[in-house]
Amino acid sequence: MRELEFIERVLAEVSPYAAERYAERANIAVTSKTGANDLLTEADLEIQKRIESALRRAFPHDHLVAEEAGLDRLPEDARARCWYVDPIDGTQNFVRGLFPEFGISIAFAVDGQVRAGGVAVPLQNDLYLARRDGGAFRNGEPLRVSSVPVLANARVEVDFGNQNIREDTLRRFGGVITRAGQMRCHCAAVIGLCTVATGDADAYFHVSLAPWDYAAALLIVEEAGGRATNLHGRPVLVHTPRSGILATNGLIHDEALRTIRT
Amino acid sequence: MRELEFIERVLAEVSPYAAERYAERANIAVTSKTGANDLLTEADLEIQKRIESALRRAFPHDHLVAEEAGLDRLPEDARARCWYVDPIDGTQNFVRGLFPEFGISIAFAVDGQVRAGGVAVPLQNDLYLARRDGGAFRNGEPLRVSSVPVLANARVEVDFGNQNIREDTLRRFGGVITRAGQMRCHCAAVIGLCTVATGDADAYFHVSLAPWDYAAALLIVEEAGGRATNLHGRPVLVHTPRSGILATNGLIHDEALRTIRT
Repeated sequence: MRELEFIERVLAEVSPYAAERYAERANIAVTSKTGANDLLTEADLEIQKRIESALRRAFPHDHLVAEEAGLDRLPEDARARCWYVDPIDGTQNFVRGLFPEFGISIAFAVDGQVRAGGVAVPLQNDLYLARRDGGAFRNGEPLRVSSVPVLANARVEVDFGNQNIREDTLRRFGGVITRAGQMRCHCAAVIGLCTVATGDADAYFHVSLAPWDYAAALLIVEEAGGRATNLHGRPVLVHTPRSGILATNGLIHDEALRTIRT
Repeated sequence: MRELEFIERVLAEVSPYAAERYAERANIAVTSKTGANDLLTEADLEIQKRIESALRRAFPHDHLVAEEAGLDRLPEDARARCWYVDPIDGTQNFVRGLFPEFGISIAFAVDGQVRAGGVAVPLQNDLYLARRDGGAFRNGEPLRVSSVPVLANARVEVDFGNQNIREDTLRRFGGVITRAGQMRCHCAAVIGLCTVATGDADAYFHVSLAPWDYAAALLIVEEAGGRATNLHGRPVLVHTPRSGILATNGLIHDEALRTIRT
């Protein structure tokens, strides 16, 4: 599939660049971490620019929806060929993380359905790829979600996001926070979702994500055998400004849904 | 200081062993992650055994308090020379982590006060060391907490711990979860505390930790210029079975304390 090959090639190109910029950030003294913020902005924009320019060459007639630089508007036609790009997801982890918990995300959708997606985790040297009905892979190795059957034993990522959704997050997800086997939050949707795909976690919750945050990683979860819905248990429609997201190993999906206050 | 030199030497010895066992874990297929649990137990016990045996040779008359193998009892005399050891903190991350978010912790206390502490983060090749009134260091480089002055801009680690403390965690820390700039949870006390010492995070909250979880890392935070108290703002007494812990960059400590429901 031409689109997946494109995603793989472009992620392989921009990922080392992100790693380089991160290494510069690590050399910035603690007392001037604002300098790292500038680096981030630069890196964010430069990665998006590189992806955009590759895209214009390879697929000149397709739509591009991306987090930065005013490209965040959805196309009018929900069925149009459209690319969803997040140049750095987990931005604050880029600036102030002890671990390199950030990723680059590219997804391709047509007829309102995500067909191909890729996530690069630059400092782990990991490249996640998935094609609709074609499986999910990390560095060429097939991925498979976990087999944990109940929430009480599950390792759960609740993404607390920004302050403006924090009360809503506590209200909706209080039940799962209380009942889950373990509770984690990496503050990066692509990281949280990819841990479900690899079987390192069993569920991921977020009250409100943009398509560029989840489009690629959700396909990776599904193609690794997991299940993804909105918080009402209905399909996630990528052509929507924001969605609540629940992604699980499938086995605990219904139990997880029942804990959510809607 | 002889005790700090001992901590440095022993951590440098056991850290590569933990990294080796983790690498074996990474080769275990997702479908048999219970195999990784066995590896963990083995690694946990073996690391503790190595530290214990080095300790018996170097300081034969000192007390040892450690998480595993029935060594978890405090000495009767609160002022006795005592070592607090956690062979692997962040155990579930060892088994199922996308990132190597676990550490090995050794602290030395006398007269009821922690005097020296070290934390190894094996897969980052990081060694954190601190001596009372002697500063804190990562791989020899001095550490300094952040200068973020308000909770609304702070990067906060709330450690949700095990299920049995989850409701209490939500009740006490609901205020900070709602108000913090960012909310994270690595599920490993040594990792959460060390991120405060490095300035990568600004505060760490836990409702109930054992001395081997925090003894070393809390000294590292304090010696990096941070502040640590229990949840009532009083000094943390290491000779206590469990304590609530608040560790911050100092600047936001009082504001953080006021958010806690006690």
